[in-house]
Amino acid sequence: MKLLRHGPVGQEKPALVDAQGRIRDLSPVIDDITAETLRPAALAALRAVDPASLPLVEAPGRIGVPFRGPGKFLCVGLNYSDHAAETGAEVPAEPVLFNKWSRPSGANDPIVLPQGSVKTDWEVELGVVIGSKARYVSKGDALSHVAGYCVINDVSEREYQLERGGTWDKGKGCDTFGPVGPWLVTADEIADPQNLAMWLEVNGKRYQDGSSRTMIFDVATLVHYISRFTTLYPGDIISTGTPPGVGLGQKPPVYLKPGDTVRLGIEGLGEQCQRVLAWDAAQLD
Amino acid sequence: MKLLRHGPVGQEKPALVDAQGRIRDLSPVIDDITAETLRPAALAALRAVDPASLPLVEAPGRIGVPFRGPGKFLCVGLNYSDHAAETGAEVPAEPVLFNKWSRPSGANDPIVLPQGSVKTDWEVELGVVIGSKARYVSKGDALSHVAGYCVINDVSEREYQLERGGTWDKGKGCDTFGPVGPWLVTADEIADPQNLAMWLEVNGKRYQDGSSRTMIFDVATLVHYISRFTTLYPGDIISTGTPPGVGLGQKPPVYLKPGDTVRLGIEGLGEQCQRVLAWDAAQLD
Repeated sequence: MKLLRHGPVGQEKPALVDAQGRIRDLSPVIDDITAETLRPAALAALRAVDPASLPLVEAPGRIGVPFRGPGKFLCVGLNYSDHAAETGAEVPAEPVLFNKWSRPSGANDPIVLPQGSVKTDWEVELGVVIGSKARYVSKGDALSHVAGYCVINDVSEREYQLERGGTWDKGKGCDTFGPVGPWLVTADEIADPQNLAMWLEVNGKRYQDGSSRTMIFDVATLVHYISRFTTLYPGDIISTGTPPGVGLGQKPPVYLKPGDTVRLGIEGLGEQCQRVLAWDAAQLD
Repeated sequence: MKLLRHGPVGQEKPALVDAQGRIRDLSPVIDDITAETLRPAALAALRAVDPASLPLVEAPGRIGVPFRGPGKFLCVGLNYSDHAAETGAEVPAEPVLFNKWSRPSGANDPIVLPQGSVKTDWEVELGVVIGSKARYVSKGDALSHVAGYCVINDVSEREYQLERGGTWDKGKGCDTFGPVGPWLVTADEIADPQNLAMWLEVNGKRYQDGSSRTMIFDVATLVHYISRFTTLYPGDIISTGTPPGVGLGQKPPVYLKPGDTVRLGIEGLGEQCQRVLAWDAAQLD
């Protein structure tokens, strides 16, 4: 299934995309798509619904975050060997973890530059959404805890991340820095999460053109690894790192500026499109 | 006010501590203490209730986290000059921020050592709880966004934090690593958050004996600083760093082992007492 939520911020309604690519209203079946909806039994119940029995949504309007109340928003750094190389970092011996404090935003919601920011950058990433509690899970069992996958733009302010002391978290958690969606695509629809094409363009120029095939630590390894440091719960998101082609890696570096348009997508998971705005409190909650 | 919640995990009831130190049931007034309860208007409404009109709670049992659904759990590192010295780190030029993935636990809930952990350590910290949205707030306005204060034990696994690559987050987010409480003490009761005695003992031996007076970056500076990197919302917690005396700083280092008892407290904010258990899944949610 491709699950989504549409409508103004805070008033999103649940929906799914049918086999013909049409949006169908899930409101007759569930009030909303929440972390509880992501549990295996709840997803199985949804899967039993005939999409043709659901009303068509002719004009969905804004696409929201595909489920309400995401939990933790963990990220993996330097998880593509060629991206590690472009940033000048060594390939890590074990996964590099950090946190994103941003509230997730919709796939096409604008990116608002922080006040005075001059180094805001992009990162197309495969998002993994947890569907059942994972604590010290084996690598073999890890994927059974995954509800599904989504596109994430791990927007990053490189000055805050790298030049202000301490951990990377400072440069990852600004408002609007976490577009998630458009859909949560359930795991049964993704035959191999390690073989998905992924790309990102700024103003029509392709900067990232990679594949999840070149991840250093694959999804199963990440869920296994993370689950020993913190318990994962339904609704937690893991953003699994980015392939080469970020702005920081250009010579000279290229960063986002007001008026830019960022488009990105992952095979089978849909596309995002964000306009970049100068700092503007009116665009934030 | 001193607000608290008591009862089994997930079934906590709201209460307050009256001027005589007795626990009074807030259930006749509010269903629960949530992030919404921490907003200035909601706190003012609670303050208007005469504690003598509320039923006494004779046997509160377990003390839970003082409000439901904490949001972000941000921490500040190396924020006491003498603690920075004991860990061998330089005094930071600006606040060091990291994240705690743990779900907060009750003040007296056990600390469960992670599987195979040999370097689990303690840190008494002043917790700051946000009561209204803070985004790019000035230092002068910062304290007006604080709902109150609490005791936090920023339990830390030093091997995970320092020897596994990447950020500190890996060593801070294990299950049971975030005791919060016993109370949320509203800001009006704390005349000066920068002059609070704080202490921690393990098995009756005093290891930490400091004061918030020696913070490098005070609470107002921290709220101001953090609010430019991520927006703070009601229910977000900032743990503001620890004074000297952590296990890592002993010569040789001392770490927690099964059977230990940790007691800690901050002037005016109450005390915590945690038993340390070997890894035991049955003790976790």
